[in-house]
Amino acid sequence: MNWWQTDETHDPSRKSWVESAERHRDFPIQNLPLGLFSPPGEPARIGVAIGDMILDLRACAERGLLDGIVAAACQEETVNRLLALPSVSRRHLRRRVSALLSDPAERKAMEGLLFPAAQCSLHVPARIGDYTDFYVGIHHATNIGRQFRPDNPLLPNYKYVPIGYHGRASSIRSSGVPVRRPVGQRKPPDAEAPLFGPTTRLDHELELGVWIGPGNELGAPIPIGQAAEHVAGFCLLNDWSARDFQAWEYQPLGPFLAKSFHSTISPWIVTAEAMAPFRLAQPPRPGGDPQPLPYLLDEADQAHGALGLTLEAFLLTERMTKEGAAPFRLSTGSTAAMYWTVHQIVAHHASNGCNLSPGDLLGTGTISAPTREGVGSMIELTAGGKEPIVLPNGETRSFLEDGDEIILRATASAPGFVSIGFGECRAKLRPAL
Amino acid sequence: MNWWQTDETHDPSRKSWVESAERHRDFPIQNLPLGLFSPPGEPARIGVAIGDMILDLRACAERGLLDGIVAAACQEETVNRLLALPSVSRRHLRRRVSALLSDPAERKAMEGLLFPAAQCSLHVPARIGDYTDFYVGIHHATNIGRQFRPDNPLLPNYKYVPIGYHGRASSIRSSGVPVRRPVGQRKPPDAEAPLFGPTTRLDHELELGVWIGPGNELGAPIPIGQAAEHVAGFCLLNDWSARDFQAWEYQPLGPFLAKSFHSTISPWIVTAEAMAPFRLAQPPRPGGDPQPLPYLLDEADQAHGALGLTLEAFLLTERMTKEGAAPFRLSTGSTAAMYWTVHQIVAHHASNGCNLSPGDLLGTGTISAPTREGVGSMIELTAGGKEPIVLPNGETRSFLEDGDEIILRATASAPGFVSIGFGECRAKLRPAL
Repeated sequence: MNWWQTDETHDPSRKSWVESAERHRDFPIQNLPLGLFSPPGEPARIGVAIGDMILDLRACAERGLLDGIVAAACQEETVNRLLALPSVSRRHLRRRVSALLSDPAERKAMEGLLFPAAQCSLHVPARIGDYTDFYVGIHHATNIGRQFRPDNPLLPNYKYVPIGYHGRASSIRSSGVPVRRPVGQRKPPDAEAPLFGPTTRLDHELELGVWIGPGNELGAPIPIGQAAEHVAGFCLLNDWSARDFQAWEYQPLGPFLAKSFHSTISPWIVTAEAMAPFRLAQPPRPGGDPQPLPYLLDEADQAHGALGLTLEAFLLTERMTKEGAAPFRLSTGSTAAMYWTVHQIVAHHASNGCNLSPGDLLGTGTISAPTREGVGSMIELTAGGKEPIVLPNGETRSFLEDGDEIILRATASAPGFVSIGFGECRAKLRPAL
Repeated sequence: MNWWQTDETHDPSRKSWVESAERHRDFPIQNLPLGLFSPPGEPARIGVAIGDMILDLRACAERGLLDGIVAAACQEETVNRLLALPSVSRRHLRRRVSALLSDPAERKAMEGLLFPAAQCSLHVPARIGDYTDFYVGIHHATNIGRQFRPDNPLLPNYKYVPIGYHGRASSIRSSGVPVRRPVGQRKPPDAEAPLFGPTTRLDHELELGVWIGPGNELGAPIPIGQAAEHVAGFCLLNDWSARDFQAWEYQPLGPFLAKSFHSTISPWIVTAEAMAPFRLAQPPRPGGDPQPLPYLLDEADQAHGALGLTLEAFLLTERMTKEGAAPFRLSTGSTAAMYWTVHQIVAHHASNGCNLSPGDLLGTGTISAPTREGVGSMIELTAGGKEPIVLPNGETRSFLEDGDEIILRATASAPGFVSIGFGECRAKLRPAL
């Protein structure tokens, strides 16, 4: 079975006996994302989100409801071994969980295995060995490039190389963990020397995260045609950025302290299998753009490698919270703005023999639409802070202020299928120390 | 006791009953580096190098020769827990091992605990959570900058910011593991489009590696005055680089596939305690250079933060091996060429709240002297390949060729103390797949 093909688990008529799953905006039975959760006062274990509940996969395995290597992997302390399984095993698990949660006859066997999600803590699901951030949002690359290098926004390598850089794995946190405003060096344009202090240009970046599955041995590249086997799932990623630090430090070796203070991910891994109905053909490249080099070109990837995902970013200020206002939508965009597919970034990453491991995380980079309504960062929304946005209650923002909360959401939709969501990726800013 | 002070373990008159330790160029009893080794056919365990032998620390702990948290940490599968101990515990372990290996009365109790190093395998000693590479060799930065940006070799941030970037942790290997020549994109100056194939400009980079000790919590910077507590030890690091890939891909986010295919480290952790006698005052900054900003300025660091290390790189070609020739010394330099101390890079790294963890590895970046004899990479030695070096047997090299082996060495010396070495960091190039 090919990675873009659907099966009975995607059937829109399938319903769960977990009532809250029906028409759930994120976690209907067609989704079944994997995560790491703790019921109140209990240690962490692997689970699956279903409606407003979480199914305890460890307990399922212990009760004999799962079998073989899948059952063993579900009893681990993180999802790494689960991600390491071949896609056939991941699909097997998905079918089994879908059957357990849809067949009313199974309901009795599963008593005590479901926990209300609102009462549980959610964790970073994997030990992240390495984290790499790409730059596949061509409109973002152009917008940012224009601000950092007005004469030269999009560099000559962009349309050949899926540009990426290594990020900091240790400071990735799950949704809900507050973000401390970082201190660091910045150099105002007219200052003689840099200043050291809290960032004055704190920004969010709306990205898609990619969880690596089995991975490759050092020295053995992943051909583009096999890349899908190594993509286990997806999440949302907020790559918090201190733009003033970034402008001063990024040459010649790239962003460093401007980004390494904190990154926030949504805790649920929406599996590659769950995303099968939402696969699209790669949009044609604009006329005059070069074709990808052969090691990045694959027929199936061209036909099915893009993702039908809508991405949204919301802002909730402290005053809005006090006023009882709903989060303000800063932007809505689409993964159609990705210049490179997920398979292309995986194949590129491993093309030099670099070994990817189960539980590695890739970020796509900020995904921005060509229009201002769809840009995934404040620096783009406010033209580098020069055109502040006005919120419905009259507050204005050039960059983010202490107490602000950013909430990212993603929804996958396709005709004839039940839409699925990613859950929230949210975090609130705390003042600098 | 301060980190730059010596004790009885550094006493030059102290001798070991392990005969080969006497006048050993790397591992006399004054060194006692930590590592992870496997005796023939046995699983890995923590050990200490002494002369041509390795002392099995796990077995020492099991026999009751070590106590408390140190004994527990020595029985782990990697050195991470050992590195996590406070410096007072690391010093305690050093004193105990030094006593065990110098007191002839202990010799009997230690029967069967020593293995000939030549018969053992040595491994990457820690699970490396994150790897960061800095750029503190100002002569290297100037030399490289001149080749990549002739008009603008040293960027304006260099003398304020200890420039660094995140590297790839998964592809770090111990000395002896062959390096596969990577394939990737390169764009010759007159080509219309990039080519994809084996690198034609494969290079070594001679760096000092820094092993992180206890580390900090996310959001809690490490003040410069406390940085030494978090430096557990040192190794050699060869940051293999594909210069043609690097030139094409590095803008705007820094080096990526040009470096991520493989990095080689020397397997022994020369502890910060062993380096105490080889501490030097920071050389004065050239006139006109700014003082470090206050968060990077510390009196003790200025007085003792530099390292008295001589670094050497050797080349051994396949033909030289066949001819029975000794490795050819490409360069000899000194850590005096570091513009920033190890404590400054640690404090900078954590200054934004980024959390460093036990077993994280930092590279200093290539350390080059101001003269060609002391430059730590081929691209500097050969002026970007334009002035090939001639080896004693008549062979020439612009960059490295398949079958070439690079060997790095380091020696710490100071008047009145026994010199210690780092052991070898070596690896041989294999042809591209």
